[in-house]
Amino acid sequence: MDCIDQTDPAAYFDSYEDLKIHELMLTDKPRQDAYQKAILGNRALFAGKTVLDVGAGTGILSIFCAQAGASKVYAVEASNLARLARAVVEENQLQAVIEVSECKVEEFQLPDEERVDIIVSEWMGFFLLHEGMLDSVLYARDKFLKPNGLMFPDTATLFVAPCSVPSRFDQWEDLSGVSMRCFGRALREQNSGNPEVLTVAPEHLLYEGHIIAWFDLMEVTIEELNSIEVKDVIVAQRSGKLQGFCIWFDCTFPGDEAEQQQLSTNPSASETHWKQTVIPLPEDACEELEERDPIAFSLTMTRNKETNRRYDLQLTLLDSEKEEHHLPCECHMTKCILMKTHLEKMQVEEQL
Amino acid sequence: MDCIDQTDPAAYFDSYEDLKIHELMLTDKPRQDAYQKAILGNRALFAGKTVLDVGAGTGILSIFCAQAGASKVYAVEASNLARLARAVVEENQLQAVIEVSECKVEEFQLPDEERVDIIVSEWMGFFLLHEGMLDSVLYARDKFLKPNGLMFPDTATLFVAPCSVPSRFDQWEDLSGVSMRCFGRALREQNSGNPEVLTVAPEHLLYEGHIIAWFDLMEVTIEELNSIEVKDVIVAQRSGKLQGFCIWFDCTFPGDEAEQQQLSTNPSASETHWKQTVIPLPEDACEELEERDPIAFSLTMTRNKETNRRYDLQLTLLDSEKEEHHLPCECHMTKCILMKTHLEKMQVEEQL
Repeated sequence: MDCIDQTDPAAYFDSYEDLKIHELMLTDKPRQDAYQKAILGNRALFAGKTVLDVGAGTGILSIFCAQAGASKVYAVEASNLARLARAVVEENQLQAVIEVSECKVEEFQLPDEERVDIIVSEWMGFFLLHEGMLDSVLYARDKFLKPNGLMFPDTATLFVAPCSVPSRFDQWEDLSGVSMRCFGRALREQNSGNPEVLTVAPEHLLYEGHIIAWFDLMEVTIEELNSIEVKDVIVAQRSGKLQGFCIWFDCTFPGDEAEQQQLSTNPSASETHWKQTVIPLPEDACEELEERDPIAFSLTMTRNKETNRRYDLQLTLLDSEKEEHHLPCECHMTKCILMKTHLEKMQVEEQL
Repeated sequence: MDCIDQTDPAAYFDSYEDLKIHELMLTDKPRQDAYQKAILGNRALFAGKTVLDVGAGTGILSIFCAQAGASKVYAVEASNLARLARAVVEENQLQAVIEVSECKVEEFQLPDEERVDIIVSEWMGFFLLHEGMLDSVLYARDKFLKPNGLMFPDTATLFVAPCSVPSRFDQWEDLSGVSMRCFGRALREQNSGNPEVLTVAPEHLLYEGHIIAWFDLMEVTIEELNSIEVKDVIVAQRSGKLQGFCIWFDCTFPGDEAEQQQLSTNPSASETHWKQTVIPLPEDACEELEERDPIAFSLTMTRNKETNRRYDLQLTLLDSEKEEHHLPCECHMTKCILMKTHLEKMQVEEQL
């Protein structure tokens, strides 16, 4: 991850002063399109409403809200980028609607302890939770959002899937006529367990995607984000070499169902600057899988003790013979086939 | 530049321990192909010869040399990657030919003060000189190469061309319906003068390429690399917005002319990990150019005073009316037209 790599909160905010990160985000078309359509495609939700934009950055989401008819938008940005946001607002002659505040949302105050109708924010980091900006959004929700207010986005779903990563690690048997297996091995060792942000081709997923967590952003608490854990047995939907676990997320926005926007970082969706996050496996854990082979694993995402805004990811491969499978199970293990026969028998008996 | 960013020599060598940099280099096909063809396409030059590989990295160039028939290859690598190189050599069963030494070439000793027939090295950095590894190669040449020895590569040429960089800076007038000119301006300000490694499309060059420097690697001295300066007037070969200056390099290798390999990082060649280096201009210096407009500039590349392995690049736009043009000049300035008429008149008079 060559993006934000800061440890103290001050540095975290300073990093946003590097405009290149904002350039990357602003030129991320699926990101831009999702927010623009979610906001401007739902003018009825914004007309005459007050909005709080948490971590406004260059102010573009605030401008979408003003364009959608919001009567007042509070754009809160902790870094000195707030000054640039102010200039962008003026360039679009929206200073009567949008008020930019250069402060953390935790230090922000609304006039007369007012509350807002809508909170918009683009808080998502790599594997959704990296950067931990959601904490600030939830703080803002609890302090500033009206009881029946709206969150943009309003849900976030985290997915994981076993995957191959062939281009990274499997080209070393013959590189220009030289055998470089031990380089490939060293590369894999250096990277195993370290999550990497990279683009995974949809055909390299061995499973369509297993939900790690689903967040209703109206309800989820900061404490619920301290540790996220999933332990499960999933069944390979295609054959291929298991070399890692791919993590991505989707977000949805409020609106009529016909208008409901989704921002997806699924490998099969258009590429975003979030790409996907892959936890590569050590070489001795990689194995060729057949379709319908079971894969048992646990994945935990826990806040880093030193740096609250970071998460430690831990992936453990489990023994699929010992872990409980979902029933009915599609895998071709004998145990499951026996179980399935037993279940079918039970059903037949019930019908009789 | 998100690559090596180290200031002291120890850190410089440590950085190579990150295998990802080597992965990037090893999977750079034009780089691999150029060295492989230059070496294996010239077996007659290598058969029975001794070779020194300066900064051997993973050892792949040493292996090419052994495959080409070298009787002895000294692979010198300062970082602990030397140990990996040793493993790669063994994997290819070439330990009888290749001897890996874990030390700086400046501390290396050949047995019995022997000298080698050939030096191979992949020392090129961004804009050729970044990382300053050529210094070590020249040190090795002076100390270890036989008088009639060969250098692989044997020449390097640095080019510059005025260019447009439209994707970076020119999309801000209407970004999803929002005017973001001031963001584009801030971005340009933050970047102006700071060289950036990026891919320039061939059609964005306003000129095919002007030679900054040509190095005969058999002759060039370390002192000659302290400061490189070019000052010239070139004539736009196509119309377009002048937004920066693009720098790249080519290298050639010894061999029969039919076999002479070139490694080119020209925008029109296949992309390499070096990409191109662009010095963006501040916004008020950017201007629309017509075909045949003259562009006067000076460019200096000087060793950084604190960090010898780094270069400071300085680009100055000059007044093309005051600077001397090459004659005959293709530009359409009145002065040049007068000069051209004058020259033609002189030639006619001579013929008479």
